[in-house]
Amino acid sequence: MKLWQKETSVAQNVEKFTVGKDAEMDLQLAPFDVLGSLAHTRMLESIGLMEPEDLAAVQRELKAIYQSIERGEFEIEPGVEDVHSQVELLLTRRLGEAGKKIHSGRSRNDQVLVDLKLFIRHEIRQTVEAVHTLFTTLQELSEKNKDVLLPGYTHLQVAMPSSFGLWFGAYAESLVDDLQLLQAAYKISNKNPLGSAAGYGSSFPLNRQMTTDFLGFDSLNYNVVYAQMGRGKTERSVSMGLASIASTVGRMAMDVCLYMSQNFAFVTLPDELTTGSSIMPHKKNPDVFEIMRGKCNRLQALPTEIQMLLGNLPSGYHRELQLLKESFFPAFTEIRNCLEMMTFMLPHLKLNPDILKDEKYQYLFSVEVVNNQVLSGVPFRDAYKNVGLAIEKGEFERPEKVHHTHEGSIGNLCTAEIKGLMDEVLSGFQFEKVDKAIKELLA
Amino acid sequence: MKLWQKETSVAQNVEKFTVGKDAEMDLQLAPFDVLGSLAHTRMLESIGLMEPEDLAAVQRELKAIYQSIERGEFEIEPGVEDVHSQVELLLTRRLGEAGKKIHSGRSRNDQVLVDLKLFIRHEIRQTVEAVHTLFTTLQELSEKNKDVLLPGYTHLQVAMPSSFGLWFGAYAESLVDDLQLLQAAYKISNKNPLGSAAGYGSSFPLNRQMTTDFLGFDSLNYNVVYAQMGRGKTERSVSMGLASIASTVGRMAMDVCLYMSQNFAFVTLPDELTTGSSIMPHKKNPDVFEIMRGKCNRLQALPTEIQMLLGNLPSGYHRELQLLKESFFPAFTEIRNCLEMMTFMLPHLKLNPDILKDEKYQYLFSVEVVNNQVLSGVPFRDAYKNVGLAIEKGEFERPEKVHHTHEGSIGNLCTAEIKGLMDEVLSGFQFEKVDKAIKELLA
Amino acid sequence: MKLWQKETSVAQNVEKFTVGKDAEMDLQLAPFDVLGSLAHTRMLESIGLMEPEDLAAVQRELKAIYQSIERGEFEIEPGVEDVHSQVELLLTRRLGEAGKKIHSGRSRNDQVLVDLKLFIRHEIRQTVEAVHTLFTTLQELSEKNKDVLLPGYTHLQVAMPSSFGLWFGAYAESLVDDLQLLQAAYKISNKNPLGSAAGYGSSFPLNRQMTTDFLGFDSLNYNVVYAQMGRGKTERSVSMGLASIASTVGRMAMDVCLYMSQNFAFVTLPDELTTGSSIMPHKKNPDVFEIMRGKCNRLQALPTEIQMLLGNLPSGYHRELQLLKESFFPAFTEIRNCLEMMTFMLPHLKLNPDILKDEKYQYLFSVEVVNNQVLSGVPFRDAYKNVGLAIEKGEFERPEKVHHTHEGSIGNLCTAEIKGLMDEVLSGFQFEKVDKAIKELLA
Amino acid sequence: MKLWQKETSVAQNVEKFTVGKDAEMDLQLAPFDVLGSLAHTRMLESIGLMEPEDLAAVQRELKAIYQSIERGEFEIEPGVEDVHSQVELLLTRRLGEAGKKIHSGRSRNDQVLVDLKLFIRHEIRQTVEAVHTLFTTLQELSEKNKDVLLPGYTHLQVAMPSSFGLWFGAYAESLVDDLQLLQAAYKISNKNPLGSAAGYGSSFPLNRQMTTDFLGFDSLNYNVVYAQMGRGKTERSVSMGLASIASTVGRMAMDVCLYMSQNFAFVTLPDELTTGSSIMPHKKNPDVFEIMRGKCNRLQALPTEIQMLLGNLPSGYHRELQLLKESFFPAFTEIRNCLEMMTFMLPHLKLNPDILKDEKYQYLFSVEVVNNQVLSGVPFRDAYKNVGLAIEKGEFERPEKVHHTHEGSIGNLCTAEIKGLMDEVLSGFQFEKVDKAIKELLA
Repeated sequence: MKLWQKETSVAQNVEKFTVGKDAEMDLQLAPFDVLGSLAHTRMLESIGLMEPEDLAAVQRELKAIYQSIERGEFEIEPGVEDVHSQVELLLTRRLGEAGKKIHSGRSRNDQVLVDLKLFIRHEIRQTVEAVHTLFTTLQELSEKNKDVLLPGYTHLQVAMPSSFGLWFGAYAESLVDDLQLLQAAYKISNKNPLGSAAGYGSSFPLNRQMTTDFLGFDSLNYNVVYAQMGRGKTERSVSMGLASIASTVGRMAMDVCLYMSQNFAFVTLPDELTTGSSIMPHKKNPDVFEIMRGKCNRLQALPTEIQMLLGNLPSGYHRELQLLKESFFPAFTEIRNCLEMMTFMLPHLKLNPDILKDEKYQYLFSVEVVNNQVLSGVPFRDAYKNVGLAIEKGEFERPEKVHHTHEGSIGNLCTAEIKGLMDEVLSGFQFEKVDKAIKELLA
Repeated sequence: MKLWQKETSVAQNVEKFTVGKDAEMDLQLAPFDVLGSLAHTRMLESIGLMEPEDLAAVQRELKAIYQSIERGEFEIEPGVEDVHSQVELLLTRRLGEAGKKIHSGRSRNDQVLVDLKLFIRHEIRQTVEAVHTLFTTLQELSEKNKDVLLPGYTHLQVAMPSSFGLWFGAYAESLVDDLQLLQAAYKISNKNPLGSAAGYGSSFPLNRQMTTDFLGFDSLNYNVVYAQMGRGKTERSVSMGLASIASTVGRMAMDVCLYMSQNFAFVTLPDELTTGSSIMPHKKNPDVFEIMRGKCNRLQALPTEIQMLLGNLPSGYHRELQLLKESFFPAFTEIRNCLEMMTFMLPHLKLNPDILKDEKYQYLFSVEVVNNQVLSGVPFRDAYKNVGLAIEKGEFERPEKVHHTHEGSIGNLCTAEIKGLMDEVLSGFQFEKVDKAIKELLA
Repeated sequence: MKLWQKETSVAQNVEKFTVGKDAEMDLQLAPFDVLGSLAHTRMLESIGLMEPEDLAAVQRELKAIYQSIERGEFEIEPGVEDVHSQVELLLTRRLGEAGKKIHSGRSRNDQVLVDLKLFIRHEIRQTVEAVHTLFTTLQELSEKNKDVLLPGYTHLQVAMPSSFGLWFGAYAESLVDDLQLLQAAYKISNKNPLGSAAGYGSSFPLNRQMTTDFLGFDSLNYNVVYAQMGRGKTERSVSMGLASIASTVGRMAMDVCLYMSQNFAFVTLPDELTTGSSIMPHKKNPDVFEIMRGKCNRLQALPTEIQMLLGNLPSGYHRELQLLKESFFPAFTEIRNCLEMMTFMLPHLKLNPDILKDEKYQYLFSVEVVNNQVLSGVPFRDAYKNVGLAIEKGEFERPEKVHHTHEGSIGNLCTAEIKGLMDEVLSGFQFEKVDKAIKELLA
Repeated sequence: MKLWQKETSVAQNVEKFTVGKDAEMDLQLAPFDVLGSLAHTRMLESIGLMEPEDLAAVQRELKAIYQSIERGEFEIEPGVEDVHSQVELLLTRRLGEAGKKIHSGRSRNDQVLVDLKLFIRHEIRQTVEAVHTLFTTLQELSEKNKDVLLPGYTHLQVAMPSSFGLWFGAYAESLVDDLQLLQAAYKISNKNPLGSAAGYGSSFPLNRQMTTDFLGFDSLNYNVVYAQMGRGKTERSVSMGLASIASTVGRMAMDVCLYMSQNFAFVTLPDELTTGSSIMPHKKNPDVFEIMRGKCNRLQALPTEIQMLLGNLPSGYHRELQLLKESFFPAFTEIRNCLEMMTFMLPHLKLNPDILKDEKYQYLFSVEVVNNQVLSGVPFRDAYKNVGLAIEKGEFERPEKVHHTHEGSIGNLCTAEIKGLMDEVLSGFQFEKVDKAIKELLA
């Protein structure tokens, strides 16, 4: 029938428009969907909404599905709407009616919410590890090159002596603070929304603390209306943490691009890590660092994109919240790619050991000389005048060595202290608590 | 001389362009500038760069200036460049040469940095208090109105029963998570940059840990290059925390505007808190909530503005970092005005106690009835069918009471547990540690 | 050799990181790359850098490739870097050395630039057509429903009578202004960068006006440094035009979502165009409009993303400009999907003809009655008082008809005049000029 | 009475919060408010809603107020709400009841709308003039310095020869395209919203075409609902145009900061236009260009801020639209300050005439030499090989002159053609049409 066909095709257009890339995104949620169901069904049995025999069967099959996901064998079959339906389909194929009971006391909304929280928790953890690896590399390079001097700039003008030790170390310390924001986002994410149903709770006597414990969450999103409100807010908070890391990595990439320019010539890269030009044989371009810079800058627009989506939406679920996945999920991969590429590239940088020999940097040391005189008792104004006259007469001689000793200066990088700050932040994530819970859930 | 005059007027144009609103902004930094100098001079004396007598005199006069600031008597005199110069001017007027020694071992750059950190720390604290006050009000209103029911919406469609208890409580819990981000920003801010000089350290044997302790900072920005890199990064981190609070307050304001519309009529305001229309005598507009919504939305653009300023700047100080003050300083006042106005307005909202009596809300309860039958042993499909048939025949009767009992639901708001979450976050700020240090510094 | 293998895999990592989704994006540039080469080679022959016989062969094969692209048969073979290399490969396979000559006097940079301009020009045109189609639908619905009244709101409060005629018509007129911005972006795009080489021109005696004419461009990006600067700037300008359209479509989607809420009940959709709920049988959700709203809001963040990428990059090409493609190319499809879906959905909206019968809307007409008395000679204050008293006594009677006659009011929609504004904007694109040039180029 | 006093102070808090900086902003609207009233009252008389004698008196007094504004004597008296009330107050003081009639057939909403459109039109015009002045300066500097060579960079790597002629000229041409966007915004702004009342029109028989003609608008915002929708949309469109200009100016400022670095040393500034350092006597910092860069980057966040304010607001007036003024009005001054400062500073730049003598730039010319050989008949591959070998052997000699002749290249800047593009855009504004109308209105 033509009319019916038309209506069908209508529905198809509409469905394609509304579903978008959801299935593709959902695949990343599969293991977390299974974890959620493992916890939920144990709770259901404890409040009498599932028979012990059914629970045992469901747990067995869910664990089997989890293993198939880990082996990379899980897929969403054609015609199946999403990851939740696919898991249910597999269960009912194997267990019949019992498989359907996993949905009692849940709605699609809180199932998605808990999947997202578990996914985010997992992705943040992997991101933290990539940050930590880069941090360690930066600290090593800082120590290794602590005596290689650089001009320090203010206003892009040559200012005071600096060093590669300081430069690498500065970005290491920057990552510590970036992780503070990401940890706040982690704490926001690590709360259990399960049991909030469509955002207004349920008349079933659910035990939400129990699923919280099973899943290793810090605590609950208690208020069910707030649990739903966390959609979008969680993503925005995490994206702010990622943007902060991106800003550190992107800025360092900008420094490298500048330092590789012939006008600075502070660092070079081996040929195989640069890109040439088909018409200019002399070109060795730092494409990797430029792409890194661009990706990091782009990531910093993500909070704005999320805010635009959420702006002025009244409370309660709205369908476009689903669109958040498309921009947000890839951000984790993107930032990790950048972190890993930075970690890989930096040790290949060849540092120019003789930068400061160039005469354009000679006045870098004028303040040093003034200070040295002050320390040996000459009043500041006289010392300043002495040095000024020496410069004028062309008799200024730069000191042979920079002697900076205070905390965080060229001669005292405080690498261990900065590592201490990092360790303190890392311990605040308490990843081991989550590990223990998940291990028990899958046992 | 004309030529010279021209050059002077040139310089004036240039100066006006570059200085901008700096003096106005700087006035807010005055007390913090004095605190920084109190700590710095004590350290200078300890390393032999200031005589004990000079220290005593300087400390006495700095404390006098601090008191004059507290009395509102401090101002930047015409022709004086900024707050730092004004403080120095006052000191040298009273103490002569000794007053100038407060600058040894510091540059303008790290002086501004430490002033900003102390200012931000102070402003965050006041913001936290305003958040806490609103939180308490929301919790009280939640408890007081826990039995006043509301329709809950998904997709802006009538969905399930909700309550004012849930609604107020949700926004209270939201503020807890907002403070997580602000606390991360606080931790980033609460580190001492003093001693980093122009961003490359100094040849003086400064004791940076000592000023850290005097000023009550958690720790140092160790690496001097990183200390300078914190400019802009600190502001961005804080603005993300403020944006998160703004998003909670703004969303609640949107809800109120909707709920006040005649089409919802869930709440009303006393006439004196609404705005009328000169041509439409029936109008009572919720202008306060609209302005609040707008201010909160605008605040959420602040991180973008800061990111645009910082984008692709290489490491090292750049003059436009000064522009950050103009957008960033007022953000604290703005968010606190919104928080205070929300705290003031909410108790004046008159809630409609009979919302659900309207027949358009009758099917809110269909899920309840289904669930109740399920809980008394009827299989879900049969229960669903029973209720469906009853609706069709016009025989559906809504239950007299909503019976939700799990954590965070209408009948179990978990107000105490949410307060527990808030208390835990609040204690993480450790404001008392700062109080103690500042008290000693001013003693 | 292991070491060598490691280096190869290194290069592969780096290449994967830098190339990203470029090949996928490039496929969309294929027809435009061929057009560019058709024009470029004719010019080369005219200045003696290509033999007439070679030109004939190259033109013939390029046209064959163009046709294969149109038939959907063109693809980038594995191992081939990009679309330009693929076209060259096909040519040299068929023509030998002559195929390579198409690159004389060009660099990769200006080849990409001209491809992008031609692509953007084409995409803008298709977008304009989709806007025009929606415009026509809106005007038809406006005329058809000009007598169906709606309450008009200010501050979300019931204010004055409005109509579906006005509502549909307003969004039609909004699209006219949106096209102004898109037309500005079109004019910026419709200039020829070819001949700028790597951004600094070439020592070959190119005739840039000739390729400009062949490709139907309005004029040249004369200055070769500016031609390169157009990368990113063009995309940003276009994204601003798209954001403007998105804001119109997104706002209308928000209106529809609100109007479909039971609290407004101004419009309904046939069931097959809504989405239901597995647990709430009464739900009919406007998912299509929510997704449309979300996509349109997300599109409005695109200018920010582009600005973040470009921020503070000095002049000259930078590799991350390539990343622009990944966000920018899909924006055209996204906005057209939204435009088409809006065009499809709106005629399916069923409008409630009796909205104003509800008593909550009765005072909509108070201003009408006052004005009517004023027009019949009663002083404003007396009229105002009369109506006020009638309302108080419950004797207020709303007029049977709204009688608004001025331009753009309920009774005088000015549909033809607004169409006139649209036609004027449309004619400003001068698409026919481009058609003529491309037809000749492919002849 | 205490209770009353409390309520009053309540109302004061609320009023302060909602009114904000409105009065300060409104002062800028004063002349435009008078123009609007001059046109409106003439129209009122033509449709019989004002007596000819009253019209004459009102016109006379409005013109007197206009002149007092031009003399800088107009102010909003304490206790008067806004500019509209102040104008009415002055009229009624002088004319009694007749003064009040200027409000017939208008609401506050469309009065603000028309004021804003007239204000924006005026501000855009002044901005266009400032852009044009900078354009002319850039073209002059481009011609004057066409033979001063620069290295051209790609990937921040030395690439090909460029020139100051190209560099100045590129930014001139960039401004032409920026004005395209601003012109689109101008066309969107230059339409008459007057007569739309509160956004739903009026029952008075207004003649909207007549006020359109009086005020020199291009046409009407016909649809009254759309007229109101223009609030925010107009501002957003204009801010996009301003952002485009800002991006050109900001990028040039970044170039200057880089070129002033000792590592480039392409340009210097006279001492009095730089800023020194209290501790580093050798410093000459380009603060003006840094501040310019920062202001321009900040301006590019304005569209985002406006979008955040507007996001998801349903159609109809909302009070926070008033907040747009606070960010939007100052943007005109800000961009003009930047344009004027750039115009002032650039001629003071001292260009280094011998940049290319430095040996790090020698391979800039390798492509030149290859191309020259190709043009004299050597196959490209042989030429490439020849030059490559010469470089290897240290025998490469750079050509004495760069010989680029095509349109837009070093030797053929096309200054006149670019001026032609600018003149064409400028003529599209048709400012003279507005001049004529306003002159007649004030006659």
